[in-house]
Amino acid sequence: MNNSESWIFVALAAAILALVFAYIFFRQMMKKSEGTDAMKKIAEHVRKGAMSYIWQQYKVVVIVFVVLSLFFVYLAYGLEFQNKWVPFAFLTGGFFSGLAGFIGMKTATYASARTTNAARTSLDAGLKVAFRSGGVMGLVVVGLALLDVTVWYLVLNHFVEDADSGHKLMIITTTMLTFGMGASTQALFARVGGGIYTKAADVGADLVGKVEAGIPEDDPRNPATIADNVGDNVGDVAGMGADLYESYAGSILATMALGASAFLANESMQLRAVIAPMLIAAVGIVLSILGIYMVRTREGAGMGELLKSLGFGINVSSVLIALAAFGILYMLKLENWFWISMSVVVGLIVGVVIGKSTEYYTSHSFKPTRKVAESTGTGPATVIISGIGLGMLSTAIPVIAVVTGIILAFLFASGFDLGNLSMGLYGIGIAAVGMLSTLGITLASDAYGPIADNAGGNAEMCHLEPEVRQRTDALDALGNTTAATGKGFAIGSAALTALALLASYIEEIKIGLIRIGETVLEFADGDTIEVAKANIVDFMNYYNVSLMNPKVLAGMFLGSMMAFVFCGLTMNAVGRAAQQMVNEVRRQFREIVGIMEGKAEPDYERCVAISTKGAQREMILPASLAIAAPVLTGLIFGVPGVLGLLTGGLAAGFVLAIFMANAGGAWDNAKKYIEEGNYGGKGSDNHHAAVVGDTVGDPFKDTSGPSLNILIKLMSMVSIVMAGVTAAFSLL
Amino acid sequence: MNNSESWIFVALAAAILALVFAYIFFRQMMKKSEGTDAMKKIAEHVRKGAMSYIWQQYKVVVIVFVVLSLFFVYLAYGLEFQNKWVPFAFLTGGFFSGLAGFIGMKTATYASARTTNAARTSLDAGLKVAFRSGGVMGLVVVGLALLDVTVWYLVLNHFVEDADSGHKLMIITTTMLTFGMGASTQALFARVGGGIYTKAADVGADLVGKVEAGIPEDDPRNPATIADNVGDNVGDVAGMGADLYESYAGSILATMALGASAFLANESMQLRAVIAPMLIAAVGIVLSILGIYMVRTREGAGMGELLKSLGFGINVSSVLIALAAFGILYMLKLENWFWISMSVVVGLIVGVVIGKSTEYYTSHSFKPTRKVAESTGTGPATVIISGIGLGMLSTAIPVIAVVTGIILAFLFASGFDLGNLSMGLYGIGIAAVGMLSTLGITLASDAYGPIADNAGGNAEMCHLEPEVRQRTDALDALGNTTAATGKGFAIGSAALTALALLASYIEEIKIGLIRIGETVLEFADGDTIEVAKANIVDFMNYYNVSLMNPKVLAGMFLGSMMAFVFCGLTMNAVGRAAQQMVNEVRRQFREIVGIMEGKAEPDYERCVAISTKGAQREMILPASLAIAAPVLTGLIFGVPGVLGLLTGGLAAGFVLAIFMANAGGAWDNAKKYIEEGNYGGKGSDNHHAAVVGDTVGDPFKDTSGPSLNILIKLMSMVSIVMAGVTAAFSLL
Repeated sequence: MNNSESWIFVALAAAILALVFAYIFFRQMMKKSEGTDAMKKIAEHVRKGAMSYIWQQYKVVVIVFVVLSLFFVYLAYGLEFQNKWVPFAFLTGGFFSGLAGFIGMKTATYASARTTNAARTSLDAGLKVAFRSGGVMGLVVVGLALLDVTVWYLVLNHFVEDADSGHKLMIITTTMLTFGMGASTQALFARVGGGIYTKAADVGADLVGKVEAGIPEDDPRNPATIADNVGDNVGDVAGMGADLYESYAGSILATMALGASAFLANESMQLRAVIAPMLIAAVGIVLSILGIYMVRTREGAGMGELLKSLGFGINVSSVLIALAAFGILYMLKLENWFWISMSVVVGLIVGVVIGKSTEYYTSHSFKPTRKVAESTGTGPATVIISGIGLGMLSTAIPVIAVVTGIILAFLFASGFDLGNLSMGLYGIGIAAVGMLSTLGITLASDAYGPIADNAGGNAEMCHLEPEVRQRTDALDALGNTTAATGKGFAIGSAALTALALLASYIEEIKIGLIRIGETVLEFADGDTIEVAKANIVDFMNYYNVSLMNPKVLAGMFLGSMMAFVFCGLTMNAVGRAAQQMVNEVRRQFREIVGIMEGKAEPDYERCVAISTKGAQREMILPASLAIAAPVLTGLIFGVPGVLGLLTGGLAAGFVLAIFMANAGGAWDNAKKYIEEGNYGGKGSDNHHAAVVGDTVGDPFKDTSGPSLNILIKLMSMVSIVMAGVTAAFSLL
Repeated sequence: MNNSESWIFVALAAAILALVFAYIFFRQMMKKSEGTDAMKKIAEHVRKGAMSYIWQQYKVVVIVFVVLSLFFVYLAYGLEFQNKWVPFAFLTGGFFSGLAGFIGMKTATYASARTTNAARTSLDAGLKVAFRSGGVMGLVVVGLALLDVTVWYLVLNHFVEDADSGHKLMIITTTMLTFGMGASTQALFARVGGGIYTKAADVGADLVGKVEAGIPEDDPRNPATIADNVGDNVGDVAGMGADLYESYAGSILATMALGASAFLANESMQLRAVIAPMLIAAVGIVLSILGIYMVRTREGAGMGELLKSLGFGINVSSVLIALAAFGILYMLKLENWFWISMSVVVGLIVGVVIGKSTEYYTSHSFKPTRKVAESTGTGPATVIISGIGLGMLSTAIPVIAVVTGIILAFLFASGFDLGNLSMGLYGIGIAAVGMLSTLGITLASDAYGPIADNAGGNAEMCHLEPEVRQRTDALDALGNTTAATGKGFAIGSAALTALALLASYIEEIKIGLIRIGETVLEFADGDTIEVAKANIVDFMNYYNVSLMNPKVLAGMFLGSMMAFVFCGLTMNAVGRAAQQMVNEVRRQFREIVGIMEGKAEPDYERCVAISTKGAQREMILPASLAIAAPVLTGLIFGVPGVLGLLTGGLAAGFVLAIFMANAGGAWDNAKKYIEEGNYGGKGSDNHHAAVVGDTVGDPFKDTSGPSLNILIKLMSMVSIVMAGVTAAFSLL
């Protein structure tokens, strides 16, 4: 026991190591110069806008957290439906998630001008500044998440009384699982709010600037241009970070709970199974740092070479993590270690396949996006039709990858016995942990994108020399590819995490039943079984969670509907906020004399304020719905209804998210392909048609699609936290 | 028993009555004059195009039917996995479905010029010709479907040997269930092929004619205009008819099988439960004929009055059917007759709610569609965004209606016991039958739409007097509303039918097991139960069809993906075929001298041929996929995987279908709203933006969306037919 517990300190040390390296990267970046006064000024504008937004967002988040915490205090201390640690854990989860987003975003806003300035020296210098600044985000996210998990584990291990054999770890892990809701809730606001912010600005800037006034992107004469650049930071950095913080923490927590349950009968093996996900995450951190150091390039490198350099870092990390997984689980002496390690490998491979598929469908080096570009010849309508067709077809490979992954991870971990649900589901959890173990470096490459994008914007707005602009363009192009694959990775990991959370929901119901004093399950045929000894199959039978139960079917329809309604709300939110932005930009063009000649400065702040207010107002309804749906479903339809809701929401939401992300990515790159001089190039009718596609794609790929990741995880998290209530009460 | 069996002859008589009245309506219509020579010529063009297409389609269908029949013969006679009646029943289902579509379409193509000509006399005369011609389609569909069902029942009742108590009806009903696949397969080609045909022509005609050349809709100078009018007939008449034929027959067959299973222990009650759905359908036919006679109007009636007249006919039929259901089930002395009648009422109400919701979201009398019209102010991109947002939000009411309907129908029929799956599922089936019992008249109002549309086209092309055009416009506007609500009805009934089919799939597995000689279910814990005595709960436990079974989860992901991939394929098919149409129309405008001055006739045939070829080529892949997916899923993942596929496909497909239908309908009517003079009217920038929305909406609402109805039913049907194979063999 002691020997195994010392492993926890290894994980804790890895978490701290991540934070130390994040600090080192941050200091290194801050030592660089921000360049000319003009460059500093633009960066300052963006930084101020981003900070002002994030504080507004946190205000809303704080109110929500206060309300929910009070509710949880009532549930835990008043009704005793919940563990007394939950309200505090909820708060730390939310706080760390917010902190990670804050640090990541702050770093990004400091890094963009410095990237531009470094690019004045060389391409490699620019790449290093941008990528290592992205690394700050990656390492802060994994560091804080693992820190939260390990510290709480140590605290609970100290305080939870020793129950009967194997029970203590069940209580610890199911309690810890509820922490995730804090991270989920904060992620919801970060993704939805950030997504609405960034696309309201982007769509507004494009519609009036590019289409009506005919001025280029990032032109300083466009009043919405600063808001657009702010949006990249609050949406793509802070939002993406919070999303993956949640997946990362959620997959570890769920797998711990599944491990505690799978090895309930064997206390020493149980501890190993609980520790394993933390250790895989820990080794992932160390190897991610190594990978980040390997990303470098030489002057004059083309897109291909840049991608190769980045890919090299990620691939080396991935392969090493796969090998390390075998080593760790062997050293832990975990039962069936070889095949469980194979489940880790399955997770890693699924991540790669989804990333590659995203690249194939959204990069203009391949046929699908080129077909969309070709369809511009018959106007915007055919661009939309072909993009939607492409997006829908692009769901096939990721779904087949996830399905194959689920089945293999399950088979491997269960000893090839599909009836062994406990072990098989642990395998699915560990596959999710495996996929996310590379997060330190993959998130670095995601966060790199908006930094490079802003660096390009800065160069454009400050009218820097063409060669600098050329270098930042190369960096930006790379960022677009990493952003697309990053989105695929985020969706794929969300799906696996949600599956693991779904499975662990049953564990939570078990603890909930014991908590409310139900110690025996009584079946319809008169059989009884002790709750504490019941396994997942018993629970499935007890609740009759079969596909023919009308409560399950009702839940599935509602879950599928939730995905669409949630998307509809966020699409409309962007539409409304963009409308306001359009009106404001038109007003400024009309009323500010000399703005088009570059003689008068536009009122950037007003546009920033509109995006901020719009996002703040519009995020309330979808967020409330996401939290309320599982609660209401549980109160009406009970456990079978909730499981139906979660699986229906997951199956439809996952596919819908891929559709939206890939359609959006393809439209974006079809436009870029035309801008490179194909099909008439910039300014042609084809280009105008492509811009329509790109504008429609903006909320697809950056608001609604990614927000679905949060929806499917948050609904699971809310259900987990409310498990005690659902176990105690439901209408039908 | 004899007394009860005489009821079958009542149902048979109703089926024949429907066909007699269809013949009367057809003769009445044929007696009217087709008008001037020009009118006759246009009608002849359209009729020839439609007939030439439908024969091409039937050629493909015949090949598919021959291949599948041989396969079924092998399954039934070679492997004995199937009942020996199946191959023949498969053929009759397909034949009658095709025949119903053929007669309906033929009637429609004869009726359009006659409607135009009658409209030269009065509005009421036009309405009557068009509506009663639609009635031919409605009555032929319900008549042939009920004829097929009752005759096969009588045949099987004669030939199937008396098994032990209650067993004979099980065998008869599960055998009959497999008939549905013939109707499903033919419907697939009708919907997908017809949908691609009509939208390739429509999109092609609009893109070049309206947008590029600036000539109005239905202008005879547009070479694609005849193909466009043909499309209305092959897509909206023949396709819609085949779709609903399948729902109608499928819901009756599934409910018969569920009834035979629910009352297995009580032979006399079992017979009543099996007869009940046929009798409800029979009384629905009689009351539909009554309703059709009630639809009439006076000269100068506005849209509101026309709608009221139509609504009056449908509402009277619905209320009378609801009342009659109580009477029938009381007379049948069916156990729990009052509450089972309430389930019929639930089905009727769900149909009305979905129809009303569709009207609210897609009619420009209401806020949502007006918002889409408003968004034209900021260009096509915001039109697309707001339409997609609207479509996604519009899924909420139908889903909540279906969920409430499922739960209530289940509760009522099960004696308010959610554990009583057999009776509850029978209740869901009977609700589907209830919803579809009004099909005679609702389908009349659907088929009326394209007839009125073509009548308008005929008036336009023949340059008839303004007052005639005004009357046909009024008739056409009414047709657009009925088409929208008809689509909602088609989707809602498809969902309920698919649910009933899903439930009856288990019955089919049971028979399949017995057929291959598996007489005992052996559970993991050593318990055994005789297959013949096992109920649906036993099967759920035996196959572990719980949501945590990875095979179920895999199936659900695949089902959800199938809905999207199928839509993507049909969207792209329309895109490609429309592209060819655009090129051809451009070529004719360029090469045929005097075409724009109206001095030379365009080559209509070439456009008709392009749509025909395009549809024929493009329907193969989606159709093959829809048939192959459940087979492959069954072979790999077995019964749990198939049930996952069907529920996942149903939940996602239903929501996706509503989203696509309503987004498309809203775009269409937003454009019409602008054409009525709002937001700048015809020719304004707003109008151009609205046309983009309408063009995108075309394949949404008329190809991909409606094809999903078939997908969700066909996948169930294929699974049902393949149940014997799945029971005997699966990889995992």
